[in-house]
Amino acid sequence: MGIIISGTGSYLPQKVTTNEGFEDHNFYQQDGSPFGSENTRIIEKFEAITGISERRYLADNMVTSEIAYRAADRAIADAEIDAETLDYIIVAHNYGDVKHGTQQSDTVPSLGSRVKHLLRIKNPSCVAYDILFGCPGWVEGIIQAQAFIRSGMAKRCLVIGAESLSRVIDKHDRDSMIYSDGAGACIVEESTSGDNGILSFESATFTYDEAHFIYFGESNNQDVSDARRYIKMYGRRIYEFAITHVPTAMKSCLDKSGLPIDQLHKVFIHQANEKMDEAIIKRFYQLYGKDTPTDVMPMTIEKLGNSSVATVPTLYDMVRRGELEGHSVKPGDVILFASVGAGMNINAIVYRV
Amino acid sequence: MGIIISGTGSYLPQKVTTNEGFEDHNFYQQDGSPFGSENTRIIEKFEAITGISERRYLADNMVTSEIAYRAADRAIADAEIDAETLDYIIVAHNYGDVKHGTQQSDTVPSLGSRVKHLLRIKNPSCVAYDILFGCPGWVEGIIQAQAFIRSGMAKRCLVIGAESLSRVIDKHDRDSMIYSDGAGACIVEESTSGDNGILSFESATFTYDEAHFIYFGESNNQDVSDARRYIKMYGRRIYEFAITHVPTAMKSCLDKSGLPIDQLHKVFIHQANEKMDEAIIKRFYQLYGKDTPTDVMPMTIEKLGNSSVATVPTLYDMVRRGELEGHSVKPGDVILFASVGAGMNINAIVYRV
Repeated sequence: MGIIISGTGSYLPQKVTTNEGFEDHNFYQQDGSPFGSENTRIIEKFEAITGISERRYLADNMVTSEIAYRAADRAIADAEIDAETLDYIIVAHNYGDVKHGTQQSDTVPSLGSRVKHLLRIKNPSCVAYDILFGCPGWVEGIIQAQAFIRSGMAKRCLVIGAESLSRVIDKHDRDSMIYSDGAGACIVEESTSGDNGILSFESATFTYDEAHFIYFGESNNQDVSDARRYIKMYGRRIYEFAITHVPTAMKSCLDKSGLPIDQLHKVFIHQANEKMDEAIIKRFYQLYGKDTPTDVMPMTIEKLGNSSVATVPTLYDMVRRGELEGHSVKPGDVILFASVGAGMNINAIVYRV
Repeated sequence: MGIIISGTGSYLPQKVTTNEGFEDHNFYQQDGSPFGSENTRIIEKFEAITGISERRYLADNMVTSEIAYRAADRAIADAEIDAETLDYIIVAHNYGDVKHGTQQSDTVPSLGSRVKHLLRIKNPSCVAYDILFGCPGWVEGIIQAQAFIRSGMAKRCLVIGAESLSRVIDKHDRDSMIYSDGAGACIVEESTSGDNGILSFESATFTYDEAHFIYFGESNNQDVSDARRYIKMYGRRIYEFAITHVPTAMKSCLDKSGLPIDQLHKVFIHQANEKMDEAIIKRFYQLYGKDTPTDVMPMTIEKLGNSSVATVPTLYDMVRRGELEGHSVKPGDVILFASVGAGMNINAIVYRV
């Protein structure tokens, strides 16, 4: 039995914010001190490291569960399935629904229940739940879906990654320029034909020293006196952590598949930071004594920023649809999904299209 | 292969609030209108329906992940296992960590990562994640753990239900008296001996009309002008929903196990509301043409209130330890776990001790 991705869909919010949009922000360092340089210089340096020139934000009247629904609806249409036949709806996110202009996360009912409601699915045996697993949540949702299929509990699952980081960013934090909003979804199901589908997976949680590398903290502007907290991270520590542990997790996953690295067609990696992703892929190939092949790693971060759980499914959907110039996948291609993020969690899947 | 619960643990917060503690509250109905009766009368009626005379609240300096950790630590000790051998840590909750005196849910890192950090587990292959599934989250976590074990992905999982509803209640809402805080945990693992363990399970999500029966809403006191939202529910609709669908889900689960109802020793049901639980169990036995046996349904709601995901594991832990007068379980006994809550979700497990 193969377990395949039979359809994909994504939703890109329409509000585009370019780096110039941050020129009048007052940025402070984590300790509250100023940067001692002009914003134009800070933004230039930011773009050189992260590769991000613009990002997408949710419309003011929308919340995360609504874009999750839109991505899901497209994945269902793409797979040409009846939504009533879904056994599971798994929604990966991290902050729930946060309405524009408010600070509370709304997680009851779960976003899975909200998506199922919006899809107008009646079948009560379609179980909807949410998973919180940092940025790697969508990849982990696929790993869980395949566990349900393998154990005979399910035949067909909808796995969604949706996040609206624009609702939890501190405008006084330079890192706020990284974050973005988006949603991606896929249908995971069993297939009796061929040797395609999930070949191997790998998942890990590092918490001994790393649990709070990404956290919820107060504004960098110490003149802001409310208790409101925002997404925060120790970028340098995350960078060191990621380039150490992600390449080995990717290698472990590929080795489990039994395939040589030369057969790997594309790597769909979490769009966290361009320089970090380049360092990860370079070290991954170095573990096999190879140089990184040209065009093995499609990237969307320049235009779409880091939308957490949504980057990998959005990227894969765009490549499947031929919407990312110079990249494509065709049946038989071997690809690798990989992600890293809050937790700190790392995961990977080797998949034959 | 059997999949068993090899250890349990729970944590009951020490701050006890009796019904008298609500006598000076200003209660309003959902539409903002006053009740037109004295608080003593409102509280008497509340107690007659729900069975709740007191509830437990978290100490001001604690958050949900900390009580999750305490329950987990006790379950690990009870199972006499090395925590480094855990393959998964699954934490069911609904509102994340909400610090006393604040209104934001903190869910990054996941509570699973926080618990793993507090347990000082080093093994990165121990994967920690959170599940949002309303009150039935802990039971669903066990269903997920057994899927991982059945599919060969895991041998041993820690499943925790922890919630601090005291952090999201509207003091102007009569329903605020229902909610409580607590944590319960268990170790789920494979067993090669005997015919004990999980015999069957059932899980369902009703969203077509029911998705928003439990929701996040503004204060019933319309003089409160902030945007802050609180846990809210349509009690009457939930009651009707629960007494219709929970008994049939329990029956479906028991029938899957192949066992006759006479072999059922105890039913551990979500402590939502005493009258509702009594109506559910009565209808469940009626589906088999039977009267409800005496003492089949241990209850803690009088003293512990409704702590969401924590009620079932706490109740089971107390009965296992002989801490609930008149109730016990011994090896070979067949029991049923059942839960219902936000989503709206329903689930059940038939288990041989």
